[in-house]
Amino acid sequence: LKAKKKVKNLSFSNRGKTLEDEINETNLFYLNHQIAVIHKKPVPIQIVKVEYPKRSAAVIREAYFRTASTTDYNGVWNGYYIDFEAKETESKTSFPLKNVHHHQIKHMEDVINQQGIAFLIVRFSKLDRYFLLPFKILLEAWNGIEKGGPKSIPLKMFETSSYEIKPGFNPRIDYLSAMEKLITNKEK
Amino acid sequence: LKAKKKVKNLSFSNRGKTLEDEINETNLFYLNHQIAVIHKKPVPIQIVKVEYPKRSAAVIREAYFRTASTTDYNGVWNGYYIDFEAKETESKTSFPLKNVHHHQIKHMEDVINQQGIAFLIVRFSKLDRYFLLPFKILLEAWNGIEKGGPKSIPLKMFETSSYEIKPGFNPRIDYLSAMEKLITNKEK
Ligand SMILES: [Mg+2]
Ligand SMILES: [Mg+2]
Repeated sequence: LKAKKKVKNLSFSNRGKTLEDEINETNLFYLNHQIAVIHKKPVPIQIVKVEYPKRSAAVIREAYFRTASTTDYNGVWNGYYIDFEAKETESKTSFPLKNVHHHQIKHMEDVINQQGIAFLIVRFSKLDRYFLLPFKILLEAWNGIEKGGPKSIPLKMFETSSYEIKPGFNPRIDYLSAMEKLITNKEK
Repeated sequence: LKAKKKVKNLSFSNRGKTLEDEINETNLFYLNHQIAVIHKKPVPIQIVKVEYPKRSAAVIREAYFRTASTTDYNGVWNGYYIDFEAKETESKTSFPLKNVHHHQIKHMEDVINQQGIAFLIVRFSKLDRYFLLPFKILLEAWNGIEKGGPKSIPLKMFETSSYEIKPGFNPRIDYLSAMEKLITNKEK
């Protein structure tokens, strides 16, 4: 039994892939199977200097990273606007809220006000566990900090108040199944 | 009467602004007034070389422009997923379809299949006229080319089959009002 479990962990562990890679693979699967149209937004760059060499492509020679004003991913599934941020933590016990930025909270609030769906996908990398955390729960924890609450969300809270995503082969991280549960619970 | 018309053109003409600038202004108005959450997607860049100088920000020293796999803008309004591409033409009589790329058509088709709203915003820059062209009309013209149809959409067609947007002060290009008409007509 132990051997079997090990094989399973081997085949479905993240194997050093980033969460972003895993979600990009998943999104490609969704797109190719006409399940959803969800893309990673490019990193915003401030371009300062571009060279235009003869007979070859333009080369950017000076540019700077800018802070994104939104989240990592958005798109459409079955008429719903979907918007989320992907986060990894090395912690085995809780998700530190310092990983989340104020502008991301603001953006997700705006999305919810327009009746979109917003959430985090959190990977506990050392545990190979994935959760879809509804924005509502994130916001409560975020607002709680000001009132002296904890600066992180315990794994236990994920187990009770979020939707666990079991990693698989294809789709790798089937977060839309978790999201359907979220929508069903909201509409109940 | 002629003088009055001229004044009007002066105050509401695009004054050398790009259509992208005008739409970004409009989106900021929508965001600040909690009307919609729609953003321009950053241009995708392939980064090859980054320098990390001491005591200052990382500098990108070699990077290349990549082809976007989607459209310019997307976001959420009142529960609807919104996705569009902005295009300008200098022509006074028609919109050349060579301005539209195959991957943009493919992406908008995918969006429509997921019950999102997809369209073009076309500016006839010389005429200071703006239109919201439903994806359906664009696709018909696009598919028509293969059957020997015209390679551009005449202004007359915009006047009969799209929604004209009258430019104003704030919001500059109130495309959501045009889009509401599109949605109402679809749901009829
Ligand atoms: Mg992220
Ligand atoms: Mg464009």
